[in-house]
Amino acid sequence: MPHVVIVGAGFGGLEAARGLADAAVRITIVDQRNHHLFQPLLYQVATATLATSEIAWPVRHLVRRQKNVTTLLGSVVGVNTQAKQVVLDGEKTIPFDTLILATGARHAYFGHDEWEPYAPGLKTLEDATKIRRRILAAFEQAEWETDPAERAKFLTFVIIGAGPTGVELAGTIAELARDTLRDDFRNFDTRSARVVLIEAGPRILSSFSEDLSDYAQRALTRLGVEVKLGHAVSKCGEGGVELGGEFLPAKTIIWAAGVAASPAAEWLHVPADRAGRVLVEPDLTAPGHPDIFVIGDAAHVESADGKLVPGVAPAAKQEGQYVARRIKERLRGRNPGERFAYKNAGNLATIGKRAAIVDFGWIKLRGRLAWWMWGIAHIFFLIGLRNRLAVAMNWLWIYISGQRSARLITQGETTKGGI
Amino acid sequence: MPHVVIVGAGFGGLEAARGLADAAVRITIVDQRNHHLFQPLLYQVATATLATSEIAWPVRHLVRRQKNVTTLLGSVVGVNTQAKQVVLDGEKTIPFDTLILATGARHAYFGHDEWEPYAPGLKTLEDATKIRRRILAAFEQAEWETDPAERAKFLTFVIIGAGPTGVELAGTIAELARDTLRDDFRNFDTRSARVVLIEAGPRILSSFSEDLSDYAQRALTRLGVEVKLGHAVSKCGEGGVELGGEFLPAKTIIWAAGVAASPAAEWLHVPADRAGRVLVEPDLTAPGHPDIFVIGDAAHVESADGKLVPGVAPAAKQEGQYVARRIKERLRGRNPGERFAYKNAGNLATIGKRAAIVDFGWIKLRGRLAWWMWGIAHIFFLIGLRNRLAVAMNWLWIYISGQRSARLITQGETTKGGI
Repeated sequence: MPHVVIVGAGFGGLEAARGLADAAVRITIVDQRNHHLFQPLLYQVATATLATSEIAWPVRHLVRRQKNVTTLLGSVVGVNTQAKQVVLDGEKTIPFDTLILATGARHAYFGHDEWEPYAPGLKTLEDATKIRRRILAAFEQAEWETDPAERAKFLTFVIIGAGPTGVELAGTIAELARDTLRDDFRNFDTRSARVVLIEAGPRILSSFSEDLSDYAQRALTRLGVEVKLGHAVSKCGEGGVELGGEFLPAKTIIWAAGVAASPAAEWLHVPADRAGRVLVEPDLTAPGHPDIFVIGDAAHVESADGKLVPGVAPAAKQEGQYVARRIKERLRGRNPGERFAYKNAGNLATIGKRAAIVDFGWIKLRGRLAWWMWGIAHIFFLIGLRNRLAVAMNWLWIYISGQRSARLITQGETTKGGI
Repeated sequence: MPHVVIVGAGFGGLEAARGLADAAVRITIVDQRNHHLFQPLLYQVATATLATSEIAWPVRHLVRRQKNVTTLLGSVVGVNTQAKQVVLDGEKTIPFDTLILATGARHAYFGHDEWEPYAPGLKTLEDATKIRRRILAAFEQAEWETDPAERAKFLTFVIIGAGPTGVELAGTIAELARDTLRDDFRNFDTRSARVVLIEAGPRILSSFSEDLSDYAQRALTRLGVEVKLGHAVSKCGEGGVELGGEFLPAKTIIWAAGVAASPAAEWLHVPADRAGRVLVEPDLTAPGHPDIFVIGDAAHVESADGKLVPGVAPAAKQEGQYVARRIKERLRGRNPGERFAYKNAGNLATIGKRAAIVDFGWIKLRGRLAWWMWGIAHIFFLIGLRNRLAVAMNWLWIYISGQRSARLITQGETTKGGI
């Protein structure tokens, strides 16, 4: 039976596996982590709202009933296109007949990789617990500090990049300081914390229309977030960031400004765009490799009208479904060559726990109603009844009490002062 | 106002702080972690049943309404008894009038500290996620392995020490292999996993009566656990353990055999028992230091009849309450000298998800009824309505479905083969 290997168990990879459930193929899913991650809610782990296990599930458990799938935990380091083998860390190899690369993206520092230790990005559960640890530890250190200027540094949180992740982080950190932590400290008022959102472009949430992005900015400002537009950060360091010639002292910096695709293009020696995404053919195969598909954030996919398909979960899922259909057509000896067409599933972003913006194309919403739609949509897309209930309960709890349950400082990095 | 410093926010330390809520004192709680941990359920985090945030709460949040308490995150490294100061990492100091050391215990290797990397113990959230990672990674590696003998090593789980923690771990790992993971692997049957519980003494759960410990052993055996009594481990290494001259190959080893108190005795230069516990006076003060109390697992406390008070949560709580009362009596100028008296709150242990043993002294229970009592008691003692609901829901879910939600391999140690 032909062997389909899927590298990456994100939204795209899993959807491709599901689409092949009824196909006469053997499937192997390889991922370097044992869990599928619901990335749209990762910022809620980083801000102590949800537990890690509420947004992540073992990959092998998700496909346990699909008997033609074997799941392997392993780190892919290359593809031998001649021998048709995936090469893994530790000199293991997996032969394939058809390969689907759904390897996703990491955050990128645009040539400033030296900023990473000071301004971590948010792509994995480990990233999220690291950012959570830093945010909570900053408040802890402020409780020790007696010098007001030093304390202010601990209480300044800088988020670089005002896309959905940056906006969601900024809004939630502001709520953490204003509501959640308000009664917990004795030596300062947590509401004095500054949350600064820095964006190089002229407005926040630039993938939305101007009126929605204006509304979102007003909602953020109401939560106490300082929004700095048209400012590119020129330096990130231990003590803060530099922008527009000025230095902003801050102990906690979070990077939400850019992503780069995983090295799939390098593995295949095929052309990529500036962000490292493989410039795939209209049928999502890699140029010159008809048996290798690249989907999700690892691929640069253009619609028929030449527009770039956005790097969002619904797009990755549609690509996974499309590739599964193509593989099944080929097995039947048909190759109609219908190109991938992206259906816009809507664009959502949330600002704190009371406002959100939603753009379905045919309708735009904002405010509380949009927030409830955002919440219901995300609970609906979570996997498994148990997680839906747990997340719904958590959110309801926070909505009513303002309290957040996952405020744990764990797995400490080496830091000073015994913290 | 007199300053009471409490080092350690476990059961004893927190209870002491609460007991002083109405006293004319300033209280400072110092802990090296930001969270209070419900240690009796820690094994459930290690076995992927509960999320970390379901059994841990920020210390400062627990005492937020008690306005005479300040909470500080910091690592105590000593006590200057002359200057009456607690000395912290980073050369910070905190002056005290009265000091309560509630610093707990760590697992101990009886002179074999070199075993720790191979056989981690279970005392902190980090320990629990480390053990969880190793258990789950062993199954992942078994899925790769083609040599049956090598695979058997990955599928052998050795637990050293058959106290409550060892028994609870062994029972839950057996259930994980028999039920939870059964459908998830393709290359082997998870039910072929061996769970071996090794105990140097003549029976398991030696703090219970013989009939209850017999019952528990039968219940463990029914779950498929191999119980080896009267066997002391003579070696722990990368590939397994040695006992009775024989080598048992196993990739996952967990240490549940012994604890040693934190270095409170060294800080104070006072006598300690073999496990490092301070030999406290009948009023729980350190010998020669009437202003320094030592409670919980850091203290060797004897009842009036000379029996050692056990290292369990109810004992630590009672000691914390007693110390708070003594401090308040002293403030009122009274010093009646009533000694600490331990009230036995009962002894509970659970074996898998259907059996438990309970010994209240006046009544002994075993089986399903005991299991339900165990569950209800633990939910009752969890802090906060939200956690009670969440844990109850998790347990109900596992009870019905056999599934466990927190099966995440995170914060990887460096391991081979990309895992």
